[in-house]
Amino acid sequence: MQKIDLRSDTVTQPTPAMRQAMFDAPLGDDCYGDDPTVLKLEALAADKLGKEAALFVPSGTFGNQLALFTHCRRGDEVIVEDNSHIVWHEAGAAAVIAGAHLRTIEGVNGLMAVEQIERRIRVGDDIHEPRTGLICLENAHSNGRVLPLAAMADTAALAREYGVPVHLDGARVFNAAASLGCDVREVVRHVDSVMFCLSKGLAAPVGSMLAGRKDFIEQARRKRKLMGGGLRQAGVLAAPGILALTEMAPRLHEDHANARYLAEGLAKLPCVDIDPADTHINLVWFRFNAEIDSSELMAALEEAGFLANPPHQGIMRLVTHWQVSRTDIDRLLEVMQRVLCD
Amino acid sequence: MQKIDLRSDTVTQPTPAMRQAMFDAPLGDDCYGDDPTVLKLEALAADKLGKEAALFVPSGTFGNQLALFTHCRRGDEVIVEDNSHIVWHEAGAAAVIAGAHLRTIEGVNGLMAVEQIERRIRVGDDIHEPRTGLICLENAHSNGRVLPLAAMADTAALAREYGVPVHLDGARVFNAAASLGCDVREVVRHVDSVMFCLSKGLAAPVGSMLAGRKDFIEQARRKRKLMGGGLRQAGVLAAPGILALTEMAPRLHEDHANARYLAEGLAKLPCVDIDPADTHINLVWFRFNAEIDSSELMAALEEAGFLANPPHQGIMRLVTHWQVSRTDIDRLLEVMQRVLCD
Amino acid sequence: MQKIDLRSDTVTQPTPAMRQAMFDAPLGDDCYGDDPTVLKLEALAADKLGKEAALFVPSGTFGNQLALFTHCRRGDEVIVEDNSHIVWHEAGAAAVIAGAHLRTIEGVNGLMAVEQIERRIRVGDDIHEPRTGLICLENAHSNGRVLPLAAMADTAALAREYGVPVHLDGARVFNAAASLGCDVREVVRHVDSVMFCLSKGLAAPVGSMLAGRKDFIEQARRKRKLMGGGLRQAGVLAAPGILALTEMAPRLHEDHANARYLAEGLAKLPCVDIDPADTHINLVWFRFNAEIDSSELMAALEEAGFLANPPHQGIMRLVTHWQVSRTDIDRLLEVMQRVLCD
Amino acid sequence: MQKIDLRSDTVTQPTPAMRQAMFDAPLGDDCYGDDPTVLKLEALAADKLGKEAALFVPSGTFGNQLALFTHCRRGDEVIVEDNSHIVWHEAGAAAVIAGAHLRTIEGVNGLMAVEQIERRIRVGDDIHEPRTGLICLENAHSNGRVLPLAAMADTAALAREYGVPVHLDGARVFNAAASLGCDVREVVRHVDSVMFCLSKGLAAPVGSMLAGRKDFIEQARRKRKLMGGGLRQAGVLAAPGILALTEMAPRLHEDHANARYLAEGLAKLPCVDIDPADTHINLVWFRFNAEIDSSELMAALEEAGFLANPPHQGIMRLVTHWQVSRTDIDRLLEVMQRVLCD
Repeated sequence: MQKIDLRSDTVTQPTPAMRQAMFDAPLGDDCYGDDPTVLKLEALAADKLGKEAALFVPSGTFGNQLALFTHCRRGDEVIVEDNSHIVWHEAGAAAVIAGAHLRTIEGVNGLMAVEQIERRIRVGDDIHEPRTGLICLENAHSNGRVLPLAAMADTAALAREYGVPVHLDGARVFNAAASLGCDVREVVRHVDSVMFCLSKGLAAPVGSMLAGRKDFIEQARRKRKLMGGGLRQAGVLAAPGILALTEMAPRLHEDHANARYLAEGLAKLPCVDIDPADTHINLVWFRFNAEIDSSELMAALEEAGFLANPPHQGIMRLVTHWQVSRTDIDRLLEVMQRVLCD
Repeated sequence: MQKIDLRSDTVTQPTPAMRQAMFDAPLGDDCYGDDPTVLKLEALAADKLGKEAALFVPSGTFGNQLALFTHCRRGDEVIVEDNSHIVWHEAGAAAVIAGAHLRTIEGVNGLMAVEQIERRIRVGDDIHEPRTGLICLENAHSNGRVLPLAAMADTAALAREYGVPVHLDGARVFNAAASLGCDVREVVRHVDSVMFCLSKGLAAPVGSMLAGRKDFIEQARRKRKLMGGGLRQAGVLAAPGILALTEMAPRLHEDHANARYLAEGLAKLPCVDIDPADTHINLVWFRFNAEIDSSELMAALEEAGFLANPPHQGIMRLVTHWQVSRTDIDRLLEVMQRVLCD
Repeated sequence: MQKIDLRSDTVTQPTPAMRQAMFDAPLGDDCYGDDPTVLKLEALAADKLGKEAALFVPSGTFGNQLALFTHCRRGDEVIVEDNSHIVWHEAGAAAVIAGAHLRTIEGVNGLMAVEQIERRIRVGDDIHEPRTGLICLENAHSNGRVLPLAAMADTAALAREYGVPVHLDGARVFNAAASLGCDVREVVRHVDSVMFCLSKGLAAPVGSMLAGRKDFIEQARRKRKLMGGGLRQAGVLAAPGILALTEMAPRLHEDHANARYLAEGLAKLPCVDIDPADTHINLVWFRFNAEIDSSELMAALEEAGFLANPPHQGIMRLVTHWQVSRTDIDRLLEVMQRVLCD
Repeated sequence: MQKIDLRSDTVTQPTPAMRQAMFDAPLGDDCYGDDPTVLKLEALAADKLGKEAALFVPSGTFGNQLALFTHCRRGDEVIVEDNSHIVWHEAGAAAVIAGAHLRTIEGVNGLMAVEQIERRIRVGDDIHEPRTGLICLENAHSNGRVLPLAAMADTAALAREYGVPVHLDGARVFNAAASLGCDVREVVRHVDSVMFCLSKGLAAPVGSMLAGRKDFIEQARRKRKLMGGGLRQAGVLAAPGILALTEMAPRLHEDHANARYLAEGLAKLPCVDIDPADTHINLVWFRFNAEIDSSELMAALEEAGFLANPPHQGIMRLVTHWQVSRTDIDRLLEVMQRVLCD
């Protein structure tokens, strides 16, 4: 029996249509610019995002770090929220590859206040001071929250005033757009560059995209080669990537509805603290307000056919995606009710 | 009509069996260590090479640079032949990612003399001197020559004497083994780590392997993440990679025979300088001994359905692979005879 | 007439005794370990601090960055207070030379809470996460506050628990000791390495010291060479450095008393906000609680023979040192009273 | 008794006039641009070299690495002779600080052939290739040879053709000028930047200068701060540096004459191979053509009051400078004659 995997949306299997697309894909050597499927995906992604150009990269971390490497000079500071993916889960790459600092600010739900940002921007000539090379936002944030468009616009306006570019870690930017009920172009219109993942909720097996201005993408293409991300018949990855954009992006609201449904179910459990309104996308974060027997919970979930990451310091995350159905969630809530409330 | 592509073996399309394998592959999230096809490929590659462990990486450049990054401290010198791929075609990555120097030596046909290497090894305590962190060999060399096993053994013995590790850029190491008529384990037994490509002559669409000692591979796995090479359902790439090893590696001698056949045909053309004995693998390098009309040649090749890179400073390279047949070569030689000798 | 320079203690002129010491110093080539005056200073500094060994470096920034470079692996995080010198005034060097991130925490008066630090320490095996390579403290902080010894001890205890080293930016550590009324050894006993400046309040013309364990200093000596800090007849700088330790360190309390006297005088001015108790060392920071005419103030100060940096966003800093007397301060207060209160 | 130190010219003691100059120097905080003696030295050095601007740096390695850091982008190649100081004795700094590769060429007597350089220059758009960021020359070379002006002009012409800047490691450029019998401006007129040492034969205790175009020096000033080379009352080093230029540079021909005299004396010893015409400056390199008892030689030299580095692989270097007289050399030759020829 196939397990229902709630650990992350990174575990999504490609759909049958994606497998067929890999099988059928016309291919070429992308280092020669010859792969028609990659070219098609790059044009499609640029168009969907309303950017001039886009580039296929092997992973989200690769795309974010390539953006930093392309935007920044060595020694520059990148202003970024303290709990963001770039700070927590990219292995310290920024100091190695871009040679840049992450200048972190503790935000509220992933949102940095404009005044906090402004206090740290440095663009003057004082030779004692590093220069601010980039401001990074993350939307949707990996804490499950979606930044309001107005907040993005304010940050972008500030950045423009000081001549500092803005990059968006949009690993789940299509989730953000679905949550905000707007076109993804609205989410990315204020940023100079954006990375988003074809994997995760969009279910492609491998790959992310970096999009931005044409000259920026040309520079990134060169640096992608340096970082070892120049692939050959990459069309086998681009083919499911195209379906990620055309078939999967439009259905993300289903995952969000399922996540909200799960959140509402959890809210009814006495030992769980969660405000369902905070579940903006497919990431359901909640806190146990009492000591629970974590190993008992995990055993019961496993026995019932669920995979999940155990709670950490009383906090647990469950993730919905195209392979998690409403029925699965009902079953899950039954298990949790039984273990936690009996 | 499908063009016959002689530009490189990087242009190889996956075989139908490879496409089917992608379609069928059991998949998981390799960042969780869950992808059974990746695990199978890594075990298979380690076994084929006689190394303790192996790691899937997105490209040959990625694998070489990951090896340098894992072996070296910053500021170390990497002794490497001046005409090698690492020097010419990896975009200067060594100084950026590993923070290491390439200490180049002009070899003869890609082979550095042991004395030349020894003169540059520095492992002492003099604080003025950088330390030698690694010696890199390339076999088969991208100039088409295969290094003799004895030469590799001599270099390895020298390296061991000084306590310096040896890495092999084995992008085409299965070609080297086929040319030497030995098991690939014989080619890599003297080196501490080796990178080889699943693409190129082995025809997988994307990917390379880095192999070595278990602890080395564990360190490399961490640094692969930092470099953005942690992929998700990478089994879609590993599945054709398995066939690259089981189905394609054993047939490389056919490409070599075709290459030698082409070299012998070229040797008969009065305006071509080539010693067919120098064509060790599937790369046919030759020199025009007279002014030729390059654009006329390229036009004639294209009209006849061939793709080729034009000569550069009188030197031309043609490459055979599984999509180039003996009949194709006969046709090619006819075209060249007609254009060059009439 | 010699101006009274209140801009910083970095402007201090060497004393006549220091000039004589430079004139008389026995010298040698320190790259050969031959300079007796450097050796004497290094032994003296180690002894004064209660550390195994010490190393002369050309500047405070050099010493701090050398410490980071020696303690950290590339990609590591350095936990450091957001308003510290390393963050604000070292030109982003950490990402360039050490290849490390500054993981900043907003402290209170330069002091990071132990819980804030602990939340960011990462020493596990998760390959997604950078590792914490170092915790940096700054005492006295460049905001003029002295960290209590108990706070340093608590941070050190936490660091030891996680196996993370602690470095002290002790540019003004002798000021800290004077303010705390303890031996400087008490201030540095909890840290693994410390940098302090021979210039600033100690009045030597050029140079700082890095101190720590013997093996640490040996590694730092190698990396000092790489950074271009291996000097020749450095005894000309070490000679006044010796007097900085023996003659000037014991008199720092005079500068503190003068600073406190100045703070108390300023507190009486209606348009100045300052609590004299916050003036722990020789740095007098204060805020104007009303719009003042900055250019009129600066003109009046200059006319009266004072050099000062103009207020920035309503905040001004005045600095005392051995070339600022009680009389100078009385005169200064008169000028400020006249300009600001009339 | 003062030893006669023949190990290097880095061991030179400052002259009495230099000590007096240190004593008398008007000083200021050079980080504020306030040190009149530094400003005077920088203007003087720029003028002597015929460059727009010059910058004081703590050491020769610092100056060379600062030049690389300022000229190059990360990943660039620096074409440089394989036996040069930058390759052998700067601790691998280029890959760490500039993030650049040293692309070495084996020259003849330190001279790289123009064709060898041209073959390695890469300035095109191929994203596989690193770019040539700089060509470095060394004159006088640390092997004791002086590059002919015509060779420098040819290299410079080639570099200009490709738009690549040229840096001169001119640690002993005043020796080169003295040997060539020309103004030092003639030696540096073809290069974009030059580093020379105030120490070594010019006898200042500490420091070197980097000179070039105004905008280059402004960028270098910023990066000097990042590297920790922003000093405070650096006038104490600049004061003897001024005398190095005005008093010591004009007398270097005496050291050269002494070196040639020593070389001629050595040529008469049967067990020594040396062509005195190869002794271009103050570095006397020679080879023993027979097994000699190195420890006996060193003991005899020491007993006679000489300091020297022992022969390495049969090769020995003796160095003249202002503290080595003709009489010292006569005595030295007597000792060597006695030990080696009896």
